[in-house]
Amino acid sequence: MLETQHEPIALMHADCPVARSEGFAARAQVELSLDGKTAVATLYYVRDHLLGLHDVGLSEAAWRRLDARDGGEIAVRHARPLQSMSDVRAKVYGNRLSAGQLRSIIGDVVAERYSDVQLAAFLTAFSSQPPDHEEMVALTRAMVDAGDRIDWPGDVIVDKHSVGGIPANRTTPIIVAIVAAAGLTIPKTSSRAITSPAGTADAMETMTPVDLDIAAMRRVVEQEGGCVVWGGSVRLSPADDILIRVERALDLDCTAQLVASVLSKKLAAGSKRLLLDIPVGPTAKVRTTREAEEISGYLIDVAADFGLATRTMVTDGTQPVGVGIGPALEARDVLRILRGEPDAPRDLRERAVMLAGELIEMGGAAGPVEGRALADAILADGRALRKFMAICEAQGGFREPPTAPLTHVIPAPLTGRLETIDNRQLARVAKLAGAPRSRAAGVEIRAKLGERVEHGHPLLVLHGESRGELAYALAYAEANSDMLQIRPA
Amino acid sequence: MLETQHEPIALMHADCPVARSEGFAARAQVELSLDGKTAVATLYYVRDHLLGLHDVGLSEAAWRRLDARDGGEIAVRHARPLQSMSDVRAKVYGNRLSAGQLRSIIGDVVAERYSDVQLAAFLTAFSSQPPDHEEMVALTRAMVDAGDRIDWPGDVIVDKHSVGGIPANRTTPIIVAIVAAAGLTIPKTSSRAITSPAGTADAMETMTPVDLDIAAMRRVVEQEGGCVVWGGSVRLSPADDILIRVERALDLDCTAQLVASVLSKKLAAGSKRLLLDIPVGPTAKVRTTREAEEISGYLIDVAADFGLATRTMVTDGTQPVGVGIGPALEARDVLRILRGEPDAPRDLRERAVMLAGELIEMGGAAGPVEGRALADAILADGRALRKFMAICEAQGGFREPPTAPLTHVIPAPLTGRLETIDNRQLARVAKLAGAPRSRAAGVEIRAKLGERVEHGHPLLVLHGESRGELAYALAYAEANSDMLQIRPA
Repeated sequence: MLETQHEPIALMHADCPVARSEGFAARAQVELSLDGKTAVATLYYVRDHLLGLHDVGLSEAAWRRLDARDGGEIAVRHARPLQSMSDVRAKVYGNRLSAGQLRSIIGDVVAERYSDVQLAAFLTAFSSQPPDHEEMVALTRAMVDAGDRIDWPGDVIVDKHSVGGIPANRTTPIIVAIVAAAGLTIPKTSSRAITSPAGTADAMETMTPVDLDIAAMRRVVEQEGGCVVWGGSVRLSPADDILIRVERALDLDCTAQLVASVLSKKLAAGSKRLLLDIPVGPTAKVRTTREAEEISGYLIDVAADFGLATRTMVTDGTQPVGVGIGPALEARDVLRILRGEPDAPRDLRERAVMLAGELIEMGGAAGPVEGRALADAILADGRALRKFMAICEAQGGFREPPTAPLTHVIPAPLTGRLETIDNRQLARVAKLAGAPRSRAAGVEIRAKLGERVEHGHPLLVLHGESRGELAYALAYAEANSDMLQIRPA
Repeated sequence: MLETQHEPIALMHADCPVARSEGFAARAQVELSLDGKTAVATLYYVRDHLLGLHDVGLSEAAWRRLDARDGGEIAVRHARPLQSMSDVRAKVYGNRLSAGQLRSIIGDVVAERYSDVQLAAFLTAFSSQPPDHEEMVALTRAMVDAGDRIDWPGDVIVDKHSVGGIPANRTTPIIVAIVAAAGLTIPKTSSRAITSPAGTADAMETMTPVDLDIAAMRRVVEQEGGCVVWGGSVRLSPADDILIRVERALDLDCTAQLVASVLSKKLAAGSKRLLLDIPVGPTAKVRTTREAEEISGYLIDVAADFGLATRTMVTDGTQPVGVGIGPALEARDVLRILRGEPDAPRDLRERAVMLAGELIEMGGAAGPVEGRALADAILADGRALRKFMAICEAQGGFREPPTAPLTHVIPAPLTGRLETIDNRQLARVAKLAGAPRSRAAGVEIRAKLGERVEHGHPLLVLHGESRGELAYALAYAEANSDMLQIRPA
């Protein structure tokens, strides 16, 4: 089985009857049928002995759609032309699309009728010919309607989202605990890592189950006012999951797609008030304040059409927030903060309190400018910790995050001030050490920008579950020692 | 081996060390090395027993680039980010690209560093943000420079190209024979079918070898003044061959790409004077005269920058030109015209004479308005036939095209006038009958638009090499009998 995440692919022998008599070109879109189920797939030919002349090999996505089993009899024919691709072409040539056209496109995307090449054309067209306000609203609505939707009683359902791109910054579990302890409702769905060393769902999973279905999620939220579950186990805005894959491959900064992505997920999750955290820094996803403001204005306008009240905060995205990078290491930072330990990372605590305070004000649990103080108090007096433990219990039980069996300290090569951090290379070190697959693996960074470091004192600490992975990470860190630049003092 | 035509793909097991320790995402671009050769490939993971944990499976393109052999030891690492993709992104956002940027993009395309998804973004960007004159010239030059180039003595090197999209219309062998007989030099490279029932190279190959290398092609042209060889055996504008594959999958009408494609091939072939035939019709590639004029103006302007004198002719693209559709059937139409047989298709003869006459005038072998008469005379008195036979001898020897062992006549269902022909469905019948793989397979259409057909007289004749293929084509033709509409008389 070919693991292509989402793209349905059919493999057939280059000398098979389909190839011979139908004149199917390689990369043709074919319709596969099996017991009344159909899937559209891209056809690839193979020339080897693995497939017989009458065999069809399927990628995981095609297999799943057909509910296939080994030995099943699959019919293959030309897929009917995708009508909605002509609307994509119209967009390429600069035409506006109607709500109905956008709905057809998203419907076909979710039905997995688009090949990756067609998805690339769609995303490129929307980057090149930015949709206007009406198109954005229609696109977002189409994406919400194409998946499940959760409704909650009342209209004080708060939510937060970080645009991301910097390592660690694991504020979400702390914020959810504070905000729920303040009496608000915050049903949070989070993602797993795709290209980063850890997603919020990965870090949370080292402490409690996150694979909850909608019924279980609802029970947790009704009981505790908040949750942190994996968004992949609920089917909210599935078009987004499909599009994001190709968007990453292209590395396109498609503001329209970012806005539609965030809003469709939050609207489907039943959010009524949203706080968007936009870290800005040279290696963050958003690189300039101007870009952050543009995204912010665009998003707030579109959100308003859905009655979703949105605020944005532009935060510092120049360095990691917290010490640990990797699922368990990030979870341990979260717990140290919730437990009020003296060595808890202050920057992460401060970031979480600031965002939680804003959310508390947005939810009306405190007056203007009082949110921050209330958030701080809830964290300081242990209410946030108790709420966090109660949420974990409701999700299936709390456990301490694991500790890696192996560590390796990289000391500071000289005394001075830490001047620059390359966040992408640092994230790479954590991944080479095994994160996120090895839960306890990753890297700790023991200094912040501008701080004094002492020659020979620990600067980075690598954590790994196997000697090989640790050696791999170490070799990379040593070969790229300029990822941390120190100005001699 | 995975036959993806051009895209290099690497298959690895989802639990292999690369997947585990490097955090490579599926669809990541990886650099493969083997004995000093490298290839960039898209990474796919498989979960089955066909690949071991340390195995790498390669698509044909990756195999070819690495000059791989079974059991070779391949090193896998992250591909360095494609610098030129940031220029593609700049184009997406509406920026002009410099000659240097376009050269880098085309260089990476030809080195097969672009995945199909990235090629789709490039093509979409150039459709959405049409390049200006300087960009078009630079793009065309980059495409020419990325491949081989043939130079010929003198500046009267003529060439013709048809934009295509209608079945049959096999004018090229006739034109080359007439024009070469008139004393001009016409070194013609032609394509094989990709999605059509036959390309010129396929039809020509039923009469003489077409797989000539540059040295052999040069010898034929120096001796006879003309040739008809397959463009794929010479490496002219290889970027075009790569781009066209994804363009077809997207069905984008990218004028810039069309112009760069035609011009880069012709300039690389050393042409100095070019006649472009643009058939216009509802099922042709170009659908309106306005579109044809737009392409024409664009192409003539860009060609002028290279000193390539270009004329365009807008021709009737509403129906097939000639009778036979399929490699040997089209070759037989060509021979019947060259031999002056009384039943030779008049429309194809007329079309060839018109285009050849124009080329003769462009080449200066006849004065204005005298070209057509000279072309007609050369064809009528047997000079074109003798030249054609001499060219075939020089290319490796002439043979009669094969005849299909099986035929099936579909009679006209009523008496009346033929009113419409769906060219795409008709081409499909020829492909279902086995063309172009089965050389003698295809379909003959025995009436032209507006002509009277008699109930029970042959309307279509299917030709096939196997009973199964013939039955397949017949079933399709019967199920789609409205592809030919007859108005009762």
